[in-house]
Amino acid sequence: MPEPQPKPVAVVLLSGGLDSSTCLALAQDQGYECYALTVRYGQRHQAELAAARRVARALGVKQHLELSVDLAAVGGSALTADIAVPKGRDAAQMAQGVPVTYVPARNTVFLSLALAWAETLSAEHIFIGVNALDYSGYPDCRPEFIMAFENLAALATKMGTQQGRRLRVHAPLIRMSKAQIIQTGLSLGLDYGLTHSCYDPTPDGGPCGACDSCLLRAKGFAEAGAADPLLKP
Amino acid sequence: MPEPQPKPVAVVLLSGGLDSSTCLALAQDQGYECYALTVRYGQRHQAELAAARRVARALGVKQHLELSVDLAAVGGSALTADIAVPKGRDAAQMAQGVPVTYVPARNTVFLSLALAWAETLSAEHIFIGVNALDYSGYPDCRPEFIMAFENLAALATKMGTQQGRRLRVHAPLIRMSKAQIIQTGLSLGLDYGLTHSCYDPTPDGGPCGACDSCLLRAKGFAEAGAADPLLKP
Repeated sequence: MPEPQPKPVAVVLLSGGLDSSTCLALAQDQGYECYALTVRYGQRHQAELAAARRVARALGVKQHLELSVDLAAVGGSALTADIAVPKGRDAAQMAQGVPVTYVPARNTVFLSLALAWAETLSAEHIFIGVNALDYSGYPDCRPEFIMAFENLAALATKMGTQQGRRLRVHAPLIRMSKAQIIQTGLSLGLDYGLTHSCYDPTPDGGPCGACDSCLLRAKGFAEAGAADPLLKP
Repeated sequence: MPEPQPKPVAVVLLSGGLDSSTCLALAQDQGYECYALTVRYGQRHQAELAAARRVARALGVKQHLELSVDLAAVGGSALTADIAVPKGRDAAQMAQGVPVTYVPARNTVFLSLALAWAETLSAEHIFIGVNALDYSGYPDCRPEFIMAFENLAALATKMGTQQGRRLRVHAPLIRMSKAQIIQTGLSLGLDYGLTHSCYDPTPDGGPCGACDSCLLRAKGFAEAGAADPLLKP
């Protein structure tokens, strides 16, 4: 009988949100041995971190690492600084320019930390749940950004200096609509009740229902023809 | 009389070592308004951070920011984990492969944090004191790595989406010998007694005299025909 092949090892960025949780479920389903990385970057609320822990545990990752980096000290975003989160915007308003919830260079920082861990683990794969459709205003959610990071990673690491190995950055959700993302997760049995999307949660950690992230989530569930388990009737 | 032009703004990565301190002195001399960024990445000793503070103060930077990121949690280096620092190696031994003092993806992480701050400051310049000659074993000290990061930065940021602006990553020491770096700093009046290079300092923070970094520094001062103010006779 042939030896079973070892699973390919992947570092998966996991915020605890809908997209990154679906991305992790996909990577697990595709047969990767997943190491989940949650970056604590000075978020104003802890609900996202709690969701990341729930999802990592439920999906049975090999290891879940939380790394802290104080992006709040750098400033410049409604997600880390004392800038009001916009509420009740329609799609046209969301599409205008770079939103105030954009965190400067966030995905570059996240991917570089994932790269550091991947190198230590000898992992050749990084997964990131970025999405170019709903987040068209975020420069670091575009396919060309992901490709540029893959090029950088090949030059930045010991692995990149070894023949025949090349780190790959997977962004499987990048061209999906929110409804497609939700349908994908549901087909894999992901419980979206574990996840958290809101930029400005209520004191008990529930969704505000009016920020861009809540509105995109609600629209996604409606278009997917599914009920959001976070919203109890 | 014409209005005085505002100085171009630069984020300068400053470890407190010989190279990054020289890089900061050069950037200041070239007329940049300098914001020094020191990344606390779980070093085993605090002597480097103290040196960064001394140098930033002495050179009169506009602001000195210390950001913490726990690269030690990622593991894999003698500089953050419990791996012995090699001592007494000659140039041929140092040139063999990637050294154990290499921190996984360190310069990628450092540059991404500098990019986050640069974006917040609207700075179009980042300075990093990497050197390709003495650190030939470090993949993220090569010119092609710096160029790949510059390409990434253009795609990663709001600034990159605005016409006519492009973030530049300056690595002015990249092709200099250690002696040339020291001569450059001395010509700019930099006091190398403020800096710190040792990978494995003595309990009172002094240099061990035998690690790669101490040996390269001693050789550099010898070739520059200068005395190292850190070594009292």
